[in-house]
Amino acid sequence: MTSNADKGLLIVLSGPSGVGKGTVCSMLRKLAPELVYSVSATTRYPRAGETEGINYFFKSKEQFRSMIERDELLEYAEYVGNYYGTPRSFVNETIQAGKDIILEIEVQGAMKVKERFPEGVFVFLMPPSLGELKNRIVNRGTETDDSIRNRLSVAADEIRLLEHYDYAVVNDRVEMACERIKSIITAEHCKRERILPYVKSLLEEVR
Amino acid sequence: MTSNADKGLLIVLSGPSGVGKGTVCSMLRKLAPELVYSVSATTRYPRAGETEGINYFFKSKEQFRSMIERDELLEYAEYVGNYYGTPRSFVNETIQAGKDIILEIEVQGAMKVKERFPEGVFVFLMPPSLGELKNRIVNRGTETDDSIRNRLSVAADEIRLLEHYDYAVVNDRVEMACERIKSIITAEHCKRERILPYVKSLLEEVR
Repeated sequence: MTSNADKGLLIVLSGPSGVGKGTVCSMLRKLAPELVYSVSATTRYPRAGETEGINYFFKSKEQFRSMIERDELLEYAEYVGNYYGTPRSFVNETIQAGKDIILEIEVQGAMKVKERFPEGVFVFLMPPSLGELKNRIVNRGTETDDSIRNRLSVAADEIRLLEHYDYAVVNDRVEMACERIKSIITAEHCKRERILPYVKSLLEEVR
Repeated sequence: MTSNADKGLLIVLSGPSGVGKGTVCSMLRKLAPELVYSVSATTRYPRAGETEGINYFFKSKEQFRSMIERDELLEYAEYVGNYYGTPRSFVNETIQAGKDIILEIEVQGAMKVKERFPEGVFVFLMPPSLGELKNRIVNRGTETDDSIRNRLSVAADEIRLLEHYDYAVVNDRVEMACERIKSIITAEHCKRERILPYVKSLLEEVR
């Protein structure tokens, strides 16, 4: 197959808070074990059961700031006093090895990645309806009414970001969403632009 | 799901002679029974076991010429003294009903369809190598060496037509090729452009 000779794809999976990005990604790890998952760097402390290089690359604040300075991050953000970011080297090495890598990220981070990696495949995970999104947020049971209203308003703003993405995948059922994402990856590998170099070598055979 | 409310897709499956378009389409009928298959009109006589409206719409030459005059064909061609063509109405009605329709067609016909239906999804079936293509043609056992050379030269010209297609699917294994075609259809339904109308209705909910 031609695509083995090619570079891998960076698939950026994003979508509004509460849409189920994490659940989809967990299921995708089972359904698409050939995919590599981007590992973030963070300055927060490891939680019980978290492993260096698997869950995160754990860094001191000094180390993280040094990565920022040396432009070693595809994107980064500060959240509740800690840094989180996507090491550029891990993504590049995976792609150069011809493997596809998936990056699960909030919408703000996805837009930063798009600036630096426009050739990525940007997939937007959609709630089946905003009513459903509201239910999911409420059912977490950890937030006040004001907070819920605020998150819904943020979610509406986030959904408007769909226009910057290549694909939208409705998360009506997790397995279905995963199958759609797998299909998108397969289809992207079949795009004419990726196959043309292989075709040129074919035509050499016929001479 | 959003795509149910949308129009279906016209998928045009083409590729060089001998690449296995017919075999892939037969397998696809089993693996993707939800797809509608475009039925051609022809002036040739029905063969044993062929059924009107299933294998072909059988027409007299007078009827066929009248269809041409009334612009009722998406494309047509004359081959060994008979007309073959794609009735426009069958394709349009299927798409309007929200169903996807697949049209298996030679490369010349596909290019004619593209002129009239640029919004179609054009999939080019590729031989794993031209050496393999040569083997397949030889193994039919019905042709002279000159004929084989001629067909290979035609095939090389046909493969150059890939540049006009959206996707290339390598027919290394029939089931694999079918799965790739199914993935392309799924991915096309997830394209941002198709989902945007659904999103607009979502955002209405939040106000």
